[in-house]
Amino acid sequence: MSISIEKKVSNFTEWFDKILEEAKIVDNRYPVKGFLVYREYGYKIIENIRLLLEKKLEETNHKAMLFPIAISEDSFSKEAEHIAHFKEEVFWIEKAGSKKLDRMLVLRPTSETAIYPMLQLWIRSHVDLPFKMHQSVAVYRYETKATRPLFRVREILWNEAHTAHATQEEAEKQVEEAIKIYSEVFNELGIAYLLLKRPEFDKFAGAVYSIAFDAWNPDGKVNQIGTVHNLGTNFSKVFDVKYEKKDGTWDYVYTTCYGFGFSRTLAAIIAQHGDDHGCVFPSKIAPIQIVVIPIPYKGFENDIENYCVEIFNKLKNDYRITIDDRKDVRPGEKFYYWELLGVPIRIEIGPSEVKERTATLVRRDNLNRKNVPIENLQYEINSLLKDLDNNLRSKSRKFLENLIENCFNINDVKNALFQKKIARIEWCGNEKCAEILKNEAGGEIRGTRADIIEKANGKCLICGKESKEIVYVARAY
Amino acid sequence: MSISIEKKVSNFTEWFDKILEEAKIVDNRYPVKGFLVYREYGYKIIENIRLLLEKKLEETNHKAMLFPIAISEDSFSKEAEHIAHFKEEVFWIEKAGSKKLDRMLVLRPTSETAIYPMLQLWIRSHVDLPFKMHQSVAVYRYETKATRPLFRVREILWNEAHTAHATQEEAEKQVEEAIKIYSEVFNELGIAYLLLKRPEFDKFAGAVYSIAFDAWNPDGKVNQIGTVHNLGTNFSKVFDVKYEKKDGTWDYVYTTCYGFGFSRTLAAIIAQHGDDHGCVFPSKIAPIQIVVIPIPYKGFENDIENYCVEIFNKLKNDYRITIDDRKDVRPGEKFYYWELLGVPIRIEIGPSEVKERTATLVRRDNLNRKNVPIENLQYEINSLLKDLDNNLRSKSRKFLENLIENCFNINDVKNALFQKKIARIEWCGNEKCAEILKNEAGGEIRGTRADIIEKANGKCLICGKESKEIVYVARAY
Repeated sequence: MSISIEKKVSNFTEWFDKILEEAKIVDNRYPVKGFLVYREYGYKIIENIRLLLEKKLEETNHKAMLFPIAISEDSFSKEAEHIAHFKEEVFWIEKAGSKKLDRMLVLRPTSETAIYPMLQLWIRSHVDLPFKMHQSVAVYRYETKATRPLFRVREILWNEAHTAHATQEEAEKQVEEAIKIYSEVFNELGIAYLLLKRPEFDKFAGAVYSIAFDAWNPDGKVNQIGTVHNLGTNFSKVFDVKYEKKDGTWDYVYTTCYGFGFSRTLAAIIAQHGDDHGCVFPSKIAPIQIVVIPIPYKGFENDIENYCVEIFNKLKNDYRITIDDRKDVRPGEKFYYWELLGVPIRIEIGPSEVKERTATLVRRDNLNRKNVPIENLQYEINSLLKDLDNNLRSKSRKFLENLIENCFNINDVKNALFQKKIARIEWCGNEKCAEILKNEAGGEIRGTRADIIEKANGKCLICGKESKEIVYVARAY
Repeated sequence: MSISIEKKVSNFTEWFDKILEEAKIVDNRYPVKGFLVYREYGYKIIENIRLLLEKKLEETNHKAMLFPIAISEDSFSKEAEHIAHFKEEVFWIEKAGSKKLDRMLVLRPTSETAIYPMLQLWIRSHVDLPFKMHQSVAVYRYETKATRPLFRVREILWNEAHTAHATQEEAEKQVEEAIKIYSEVFNELGIAYLLLKRPEFDKFAGAVYSIAFDAWNPDGKVNQIGTVHNLGTNFSKVFDVKYEKKDGTWDYVYTTCYGFGFSRTLAAIIAQHGDDHGCVFPSKIAPIQIVVIPIPYKGFENDIENYCVEIFNKLKNDYRITIDDRKDVRPGEKFYYWELLGVPIRIEIGPSEVKERTATLVRRDNLNRKNVPIENLQYEINSLLKDLDNNLRSKSRKFLENLIENCFNINDVKNALFQKKIARIEWCGNEKCAEILKNEAGGEIRGTRADIIEKANGKCLICGKESKEIVYVARAY
C-alpha cells in the first residue's frame, strides 16, 4: 500500500484518498458530484465528534432544535449582503412532481434566513432573551471549485448555533463563549489551528465581524473548521426581531451565529495526526479505543483465547474495545489493519502474557510497547490514552508553529507558500494590496490573530505604506 | 384553554394543534407549507424516540451510515414501479446558483435509489452478506393532500434501514426481525396499532409485499407509523447487485427495507395518550420525567426549599428531573403547566412532607396521589413509572379493540367510519371492490392482519362472491 508519511506531505491528495478508501471512512464514488457516502467507520467518528460538541453546547444552555431545510426565496433574499454572497452557490427547488412551485425554495446554505422569521414570532420581551439554539444538520453549497472529499463538498455536515441578546455587550460575550467551546473541542481532538479575525472583505455575509479556526494541512492549504460571527443588528433589523425592554421601550436584538464543521474536522484529524501506517485517532472520538489481538502459540491456543476474553470483559464497560479473533489472519496482518484504522491501543496477548498475567500495550502514535501487570491495566490504559492525546496535540501544535514564516516581500510569501507554509506579514489593511498579494503569491490574507495581540510596527509588505496589522497568508480550502 | 378529552375526539384537529402550540412541540407557522420547526421540547422527544430505536438497531447489527440527500434522476428512474409511484411527489433540483444542472437531482423521498448504486460496488461475495445499515434522516415528499403538522408533512423525520441477503429465506427472517424491533419500540411507548399486510395495490413501490403499523387516532384516521418491505430481487436486479456464492456461481441479493416515522410516532403518542390536561408522555421518552414543586407555607419557605433540593439531588443521577422554584407563580399554575407538558410524575413538597420526611407523588396518567417515605422514593418512583407505562399501553390497546367493528354491508362500514371506527370485513381480494368501497364508504382497505391468522369464511362485503381475506378498512393519513 502507498500510505506513507512522506506521501502525506509530498502528495497529500493521494495519501488522503487512500486512507479514506482503505479505512472505509467515506466513499467518494457516489454518482452525484460533491456528495459523499459516510460509511460505518467514518460516520461513527462524526457521531463522536458531534456528541463531544453537543455536550458542551447543552452545558452552556444552547437548546437543540430543528429548522427546515427549505427556505423560501422571500426570506432568503431579505438580508442584502447575505443573498449577494450566497445566491450563486445555493441549490434551487422550483419544481415538485410535475408542478412548478409558486415560490422557489433554496436548500439551506446556512440557516439564518430559516430561523429569523421564527425569532420574529418568538421573541417579544427581555424575558425571552438570551435565545440560544443549535442544530446538527447538513447544509448545501454548490461549490464551483473542484470538490474534495470531506474538505470541499456540496453536502456539508455541521452544527450551527444561533443566539439573540438584549445588548451588544452580551452578543460580544456570546462570541467569546462560542470560541471557548470550539477551542475546547478542537483541543480535545488535538487539532492545531490559527484563530483569526477575518479581514473585512472575507467576513460572513451579513456579519459585523467573523472569527475563524484555520487548521493546518499537510498540503499547505488551511482548512476552516469553525467560524464565529457577530451579526450585530444586521439580521434582526431586516427580519424585524425586536424586544420590549424593562422600561417599556423597544430595541432590536443583537445576534450571533457560529458553525462547527464535522466533515472538515474529521479531515483535520486524519490529516494532522495520520502517519505512515494510516489514521491515528484521539481517544475521545476513536470508534474503537482498544483492540485485543491474540498471538497464537501451539499448545496455548485455549489459554490465550480465554485470557483475551478475561481482559476484554475487564475493560468492556469503560472502553470501546474489540477482540480480533479471526483464525485465518496472521497477527502481523491484524496489526497492519488496526493501525490503518487508527485504534489508539493494541493489546497483544501471547503465552508469556498469559503465564505472567500481564498485557503488552502498543500505542498507536509512536508504536511504543509496554508490558503491564493485569492489576494495573486500567490505570495504565488511562494514562496511556491521556499521554497519546497530549502527544498528538503537542506534535500538531509544533508542526503548525514551524509552518509559520515571517515574510518581508512578495517573493518570500511565494516561497513560503510553495513550501506549504503559512506566511506572517505586515499589512496596511487595504483590500487592493490583498488582491495584489493573491495574484502574485497565490495566497489569501486569512486575518489577524484573535487569541493574542500582535502589534503592527513596520511597513505593508505590498505597498510599503505604514502597516496596520500583522496578518497570516495561506492558500485555503 | 380549550384542551379537553371531549375535544380530542369531537374536534381532534383543534385539540391537537392547541397541544402542539401550548406545549411548544412544533411550530407550524414556518413560512414554507408542510415544513415544521421542531422546538426544544418536541425535538427532545424525537431524539429520545430515535435513541430508543437506534439502540435496538445497533444491537441487531445494523450499521449507522449516512447517504446523500440528492439522488440523480438516472438512479431514481431505474426501478419502474418506484419511479412511477414517486415521480409525482418528489422535489426536483434543476438549478444551482444561476446555472442549470447537467443532470437533474431529486431530494430523497426514501433512499433505495441512493443506496443501491453503492451496494453494487460494495457487495461482491457471500462474505459481504448480510448487509444491514440504517440512517436517521429527513425524507422529502410533496404531499398534495392538505398538510397536517406531524401527520402529513413534506419534510419527514424517520429512520430507514436497508438490508441485503444471500437467500429469500434470510430476507424473510429479516422482515420478521424488523417487525420485532419496531413492535418493541411501539410497545415501550404504549402505542396501539394494527399490524397489517397491505393489499397488492397499496404495497411499497417496488416491493414484493409490505407490512405496516397502523396506529389508531381519535379522529378515526389511522396513522401509519412504520412499514417493513420485502423487496425480493426487484431492486438488486435493476441495480445489478450480485454476489459470488461459495460454489463460485453468482446470484442477485435479496433485499428488504423498513422505515420508522419519528414525526408520526410523536403524533401517535400525543394523540393516543393525551387527555383533558394535555400531553401524557411514557417514561422512556419524556424529556422531563419528574418535576419537584414546592408548596410554600409561611415560615417554612427555607425548609421546603432545602428539602426539595435534597430530593432533587437524591434523584438527579437516575432520572430526568427538574425543580420548578419560580417564586412568582402559584403551585396550581405550575401543576397546570407541567401537566400540559405531560411530565409523568409530579412531586409536591409542603410543610408536612418536610416534617415527616416524605414526598407526595402525583402521577400524570390518572392524577392519583401517593405519599411515600423518602427512603422508599426510588423504589416507589420506579414502580410508579412502570405502572404508568403499563396503564397507558393497556388503555390504548383497549381503545383500539373497541374501535374495531365487524361490518357486513357497505352501510355498516359507512356508519363505522362515521363513528371514527375501523371496519373489519370479508373481502374477495379484487381491487375493483376496494375501489367501490372507497367511493361509497370513504375508507381504504388497509390489509390483513400480519400478527395473527384470521381465516376468511364468508362472502365479500361488496360483490358477494366468496371472500378470500379478512381485512381492515379505515380512513387514513
